Amino acid sequence: MTLFKSLAVVGPGLIGSSILRRAREDRGIAQTLIAADSNAAVLDRVRELGLADIVTADLAEAAKADCVVLCVPVGAVEAVALEMLPYMKQGAILTDVASVRGQLGPRISTALPTGVSYVPAHPMAGTEHSGPDAGFATLFEDRWCLLIPPANTDTSAIHKIEQLWKQCGARTRVLEDAYHDQVCAIVSHLPHLLAFTICDTADNLSDELRADVLEYAASGFRDFTRIAASDPVMWRDIFLANREILLETLDRFTADTKGMADAIRAGDVESITDRIARGRQIRRTLIANRQA
Amino acid sequence: MTLFKSLAVVGPGLIGSSILRRAREDRGIAQTLIAADSNAAVLDRVRELGLADIVTADLAEAAKADCVVLCVPVGAVEAVALEMLPYMKQGAILTDVASVRGQLGPRISTALPTGVSYVPAHPMAGTEHSGPDAGFATLFEDRWCLLIPPANTDTSAIHKIEQLWKQCGARTRVLEDAYHDQVCAIVSHLPHLLAFTICDTADNLSDELRADVLEYAASGFRDFTRIAASDPVMWRDIFLANREILLETLDRFTADTKGMADAIRAGDVESITDRIARGRQIRRTLIANRQA
Repeated sequence: MTLFKSLAVVGPGLIGSSILRRAREDRGIAQTLIAADSNAAVLDRVRELGLADIVTADLAEAAKADCVVLCVPVGAVEAVALEMLPYMKQGAILTDVASVRGQLGPRISTALPTGVSYVPAHPMAGTEHSGPDAGFATLFEDRWCLLIPPANTDTSAIHKIEQLWKQCGARTRVLEDAYHDQVCAIVSHLPHLLAFTICDTADNLSDELRADVLEYAASGFRDFTRIAASDPVMWRDIFLANREILLETLDRFTADTKGMADAIRAGDVESITDRIARGRQIRRTLIANRQA
Repeated sequence: MTLFKSLAVVGPGLIGSSILRRAREDRGIAQTLIAADSNAAVLDRVRELGLADIVTADLAEAAKADCVVLCVPVGAVEAVALEMLPYMKQGAILTDVASVRGQLGPRISTALPTGVSYVPAHPMAGTEHSGPDAGFATLFEDRWCLLIPPANTDTSAIHKIEQLWKQCGARTRVLEDAYHDQVCAIVSHLPHLLAFTICDTADNLSDELRADVLEYAASGFRDFTRIAASDPVMWRDIFLANREILLETLDRFTADTKGMADAIRAGDVESITDRIARGRQIRRTLIANRQA
């Protein structure tokens, strides 16, 4: 008995092709694997890599699967969901992997045909690469996958999506939309915003200074550029989708930065040391949590 | 022929004990190694580790070496230099490893006895650990060491300190004080300030949210905590010593952050993507420079 008879991945990029690769290895996930995309080159590559049993540009065809996983950019989830939902069958589950929830939950919920469940999930895994070649079967191993089902979602559908992610190697947890977006704002979105910005600040330096900054980057700057290497369109969509919470978190950070700057300007030795020591404390907790 | 007859390291912590370890392995650096510190426990540990031929709390004794390397915190360099300079001999070289120059060059220059040279250097290497146990002989391997000699410093003294660092495995370059501090502000000081601050912002969250942020830290936040783990007193001193240039660099960054926030608030898709793309470009240059 497989978890699903058929599983369709719409958008077989880094995340989607990793799910397909995992399901190729663990045949307990689904009997039939379907890959769908609007980009013919992506579909050709998926065929060459042998990632799915059915490879199609026809969303209505992919929508007939028992489980449809939307792995399209955050900004495209709603449109693709609304296009596919009318073709989905009774008892089927729609899920996505969007890293920001915003209004997706309530909006897609209202469009659900009877007997179709929506159980979105956010696998907290990724690399700076993208496309069907970038995926690998162990991408989700020991990573968190956060489930964000709308209120009143069918419990057995939630369990099935939990099981899907567990079979992909992930640890799962159920959160509410707004809380999820708040956690992600500080865990991921704000760090990326700052990393992109410090790279931008460096880019705006004089040619000589910029060349030397790049030469001596090993002293900390490099660590910021690592997370600034990610896909611009994906991050643009994430920033826009989580606009309110992200800007509010940024305001808090800006106030804290101003506090540090004021302490440095005033030579307030104690305040500077306190602020630095708190940062160290958090690092120690991470090491204790085995996250560092 | 060794580079120096005797070499004294004042403050055998991470950097100082790494120099001693390297000089223990490469006997072409100095015939006699001296370690000096005001802390008796540090001296005991240096004796146990067998890092030096002479281990002393007497700065006047250590000052008699042909080369005196001050590895004390940035904030203590000037005071220790002024205490030792009167005991230094004709032809000897004073150096330090301070990561901010500020007014150190001109101030120490005016106190130099005739025939004594001052050739400070900044090895761009380190770990988050400190103390005589933290050092290792290969710490400087393939890392940059920036020399910042005051104007009119004796050329042969500069060459000798360059040679010292080359024998420690480092690549060397000579820079001017203010330019050095400007490069380090963006390469190292600003990233550390931001990293300490985002950790501080996380620390100020509600208990529940903070616990979850720590749980899901792998998505970017963790990379910031890595550089936030460094020694608070050292970084307090660095921030204060490079106050003007650092705050000016922070102002530029804050303006760029505000630009990004405004673009997000306005939904200015093109401006957001441009800013992100510039960050990616810098990352690619780093990879091309083999710094990433």
